[in-house]
Amino acid sequence: MADNERVVVDFRTEPARYKHWKLSFAGPVATLAMDVQEDGGLVPGYELKLNSYDLGVDVELYDAIQRLRFEHPEVGAVLLTSAKERVFCAGANIRMLSQSSHGWKVNFCKFTNETRSAIEDATAHSRQAWLAAVHGPCAGGGYELALATDWIIMADDGSTTVALPEVPLLAVLPGTGGLTRLVDKRHVRRDRADFFCTLEEGIKGQRAVEWRLVDEVVPRSRLAEATKTRAGALAARTDRPAGARGITLDRLERGIEGDRITYGHVTSDIDRGRGVAEITVAGPTAPPPGDAAGIHAAGTRFWPLAVARELDDLILHLRTNEEEIGLWLLRTTGSADLVEAHDRALLEHEADWLVREIRLYLKRTLKRLDVSSRSIFALIEPGSCFAGTLVELALAADRAFMLDGPREGDARPAPAVRLTGMNFGPYPTVNGLTRLESRFLDEPGRVDDLKGRIGEDLDASDASEAGLVTFTPDDIDWEDEVRIAIEERAAFSPDALTGMEASLRFAGPETMESKIFARLSAWQNWIFQRPNAVGPKGALKVYGTGERGDFDRRRV
Amino acid sequence: MADNERVVVDFRTEPARYKHWKLSFAGPVATLAMDVQEDGGLVPGYELKLNSYDLGVDVELYDAIQRLRFEHPEVGAVLLTSAKERVFCAGANIRMLSQSSHGWKVNFCKFTNETRSAIEDATAHSRQAWLAAVHGPCAGGGYELALATDWIIMADDGSTTVALPEVPLLAVLPGTGGLTRLVDKRHVRRDRADFFCTLEEGIKGQRAVEWRLVDEVVPRSRLAEATKTRAGALAARTDRPAGARGITLDRLERGIEGDRITYGHVTSDIDRGRGVAEITVAGPTAPPPGDAAGIHAAGTRFWPLAVARELDDLILHLRTNEEEIGLWLLRTTGSADLVEAHDRALLEHEADWLVREIRLYLKRTLKRLDVSSRSIFALIEPGSCFAGTLVELALAADRAFMLDGPREGDARPAPAVRLTGMNFGPYPTVNGLTRLESRFLDEPGRVDDLKGRIGEDLDASDASEAGLVTFTPDDIDWEDEVRIAIEERAAFSPDALTGMEASLRFAGPETMESKIFARLSAWQNWIFQRPNAVGPKGALKVYGTGERGDFDRRRV
Repeated sequence: MADNERVVVDFRTEPARYKHWKLSFAGPVATLAMDVQEDGGLVPGYELKLNSYDLGVDVELYDAIQRLRFEHPEVGAVLLTSAKERVFCAGANIRMLSQSSHGWKVNFCKFTNETRSAIEDATAHSRQAWLAAVHGPCAGGGYELALATDWIIMADDGSTTVALPEVPLLAVLPGTGGLTRLVDKRHVRRDRADFFCTLEEGIKGQRAVEWRLVDEVVPRSRLAEATKTRAGALAARTDRPAGARGITLDRLERGIEGDRITYGHVTSDIDRGRGVAEITVAGPTAPPPGDAAGIHAAGTRFWPLAVARELDDLILHLRTNEEEIGLWLLRTTGSADLVEAHDRALLEHEADWLVREIRLYLKRTLKRLDVSSRSIFALIEPGSCFAGTLVELALAADRAFMLDGPREGDARPAPAVRLTGMNFGPYPTVNGLTRLESRFLDEPGRVDDLKGRIGEDLDASDASEAGLVTFTPDDIDWEDEVRIAIEERAAFSPDALTGMEASLRFAGPETMESKIFARLSAWQNWIFQRPNAVGPKGALKVYGTGERGDFDRRRV
Repeated sequence: MADNERVVVDFRTEPARYKHWKLSFAGPVATLAMDVQEDGGLVPGYELKLNSYDLGVDVELYDAIQRLRFEHPEVGAVLLTSAKERVFCAGANIRMLSQSSHGWKVNFCKFTNETRSAIEDATAHSRQAWLAAVHGPCAGGGYELALATDWIIMADDGSTTVALPEVPLLAVLPGTGGLTRLVDKRHVRRDRADFFCTLEEGIKGQRAVEWRLVDEVVPRSRLAEATKTRAGALAARTDRPAGARGITLDRLERGIEGDRITYGHVTSDIDRGRGVAEITVAGPTAPPPGDAAGIHAAGTRFWPLAVARELDDLILHLRTNEEEIGLWLLRTTGSADLVEAHDRALLEHEADWLVREIRLYLKRTLKRLDVSSRSIFALIEPGSCFAGTLVELALAADRAFMLDGPREGDARPAPAVRLTGMNFGPYPTVNGLTRLESRFLDEPGRVDDLKGRIGEDLDASDASEAGLVTFTPDDIDWEDEVRIAIEERAAFSPDALTGMEASLRFAGPETMESKIFARLSAWQNWIFQRPNAVGPKGALKVYGTGERGDFDRRRV
């Protein structure tokens, strides 16, 4: 509980430091084996028995997913398995959940959801197909993890089951995508899903296949062989280059001094009084390499990749470690020409596997912004470089303020916004549409018109007319208008803002991802507040004590 | 608070008993004027000032919507307006919300949401177009009510504004569809919606039109005339028969004796010990009238309409007045042939305005089941008549149990399920698909196959194979299996079940309606539990005291 809040979580890790996972390779197939260290919890107070997990376990999983994509172009299939003899995974650790604050639980679930979505993104877009081989109980979050893969093989023996026992055992939901993936990904019939989700003991064998809960069952003795065959077949379908060399995701350098966080290109200054993080993204300082080989050689020094990594880490850091900082102000600084040149490189070399990965990583990082429970304002001022990829920051923001004209005493010209081809496809948000498409839902013509203005510097008046920015105060009004907007935001209820932002950010079509983040999570958050789960007699609290939860029977 | 729970709400009313609305007619245009009686609250403890509303106000609104459809075929447009000189509507009454239990708030919002959806359903499908004429402040739930209409005309004067001030004033959401309708119905740009939803004072005049918040502004002096013109134009587009006579929705007869509720065709027995309501729908006892004229003559005695009214009332009664009854068991009894005959009448005469209304009413009533936070099991036994329209009850259920074979000592034959054309289109659920389509999301072929089996009696084995029922115990197993399922359900956390059911019931595509019920409501429910809204220093609690809410600044 209180202890969680005192732990500063660092999301940076690497295989040599993993406590809980074993990564191995056999040609085009990688195996990621879960082997959770019981006393390796991130926070004191619980033991990670039976391959149960906490945030620390998931931080390593996330790192592994990233490295498999960037460091292993030769890998076409990733086999998720358990290194324990008798269990696949028991899901999120109950004691950890039980002792955690509401905020910690919600943030933990958000990150684990993003990590499972990243597995699906790797399968679909990096062409690195994930599959799961299940032996022993695979329950709750363990089964939800398997559900994130595209193929589940299960041993047909007395002890192997899949289960979502959250409702009967803990009075909470299978909230890491489980409910949604059952009916929307695997199309398990809703009445069967209903029954399955109330079964403590889960389902095994052929019935699990018939009900679509898994894809294949084989005798335990044949599990390894069947898995190998399936993984090989999946790997054979990839378009990833078997002979290519990956790039190394070297340790991300980050300095934290007081309330300032500094990366190579990204800085963040926290103003605790106002509850604000002022985030500035610096554009590139040199043109991009002239060809794909140059991009490979630059590796993590290639500006788009560097910025993706830094922003990703900063978002995770602020979300997890700075709960009271409710408003993120996004600025950019640098040369729009150089940002545009890098965007051109991302467009020209899209067929290159590494460039594809970088684009996908930027997409996922921008999506993290969309689902962050923080207000986001973009500030577009002289010296900024809101071009292409960086325009997405302004489009992801709840509001964008753009200075109309130059600033007195500032020799730099009035700010401009410049679109590139990267604004028209590569960065869909969780609803499956680009941010521009989502912005003009019933006016697709506006998006087409904007395509015709790629490369043009749009001043405040142009950008406002084009619908790209919210407000365009001039130099006389800027300071007051922005200050008041910030102060007002800080005065509102953080919860009401979270609910409001989650509702306004996801207009238009829905996807499995949007359902998980905007709907399933909302229900889970509600339940995480209900006495039936977290009160003194709530099921989550009494779990393991031998007592049953004592419920208020009123339906709400 | 506690007081709400002691009031037994009766949803039956009629215009002569309205306290809060004035209904008037001028040819094809009806006017529904809101004129809330300050001391006419449903529960003691608050005054309904400034046309603010409570559940009682909405019960009358719901009744008016129903009567306009059934009793007034000549009406093609309904003008929603305020009878107060200085205000349109201030939204849900804050004191009422503040003194209400969590369950009351949530149930109140669900019913108001359904009522606003009914306005949209009338506009779209009954061809009775709703429009709103706004003078004076139109805030919160007042603006959400206007948003449910298809055209909003606003007076352009100093005092008329539209506003969603829930977030800044009360630390809750515009949760009666407001957030969703802004971005998904009216396609207000998300950054503008963000700004608008944080403005206590709202937006007026031309800016409200530019931002799509209203459709038209006119000087106050011209409001009546412009409204009349617009209403006339909307009414002219209807296909409703100007010369037809409506049917009268006579008072629904209902008997409540102890724990038994009896209508003409529907009965409900409450078993408080088990937390169960046993609901039985009796099929028709005679063939339907031979033609549309006969249906008109039968009016509310026409079985499909009678059942729709009875079920509707029962669902509302149980939801509002029987919170602790968490499981509804649905049975039918009677002749499948006669149900099928009535379904044929509904199909043959679908062009008739009244038959269309009856079909739409059944659709809406079935949707109420879908969004009810109660577990629903269907029990298909000898003597039942699960045919066509009544099959939808089984498909709406979380599980359906069907007895395989006859019952010992019961002369009646083994039960059967029979599909009719009514299962293949007229009753979409909130996701826009039929229940069969939703059931077989990635197997549309199964739905097509079932079309070929219309009229066939499917026994337990057929129905199970067709995927229509969940379990088919035989006579030996039936009693234990059903009893255990009921007992288990009663033992689970009501909240976890609510979240689970809301997630499993709405697979597939999303609509504005599903977003409102399954997503916006979930966020609102969460916020309704948060100390920042409802704690001793929460904004909802201190509203009107001059104090500001004191917020925990941590973002969750």
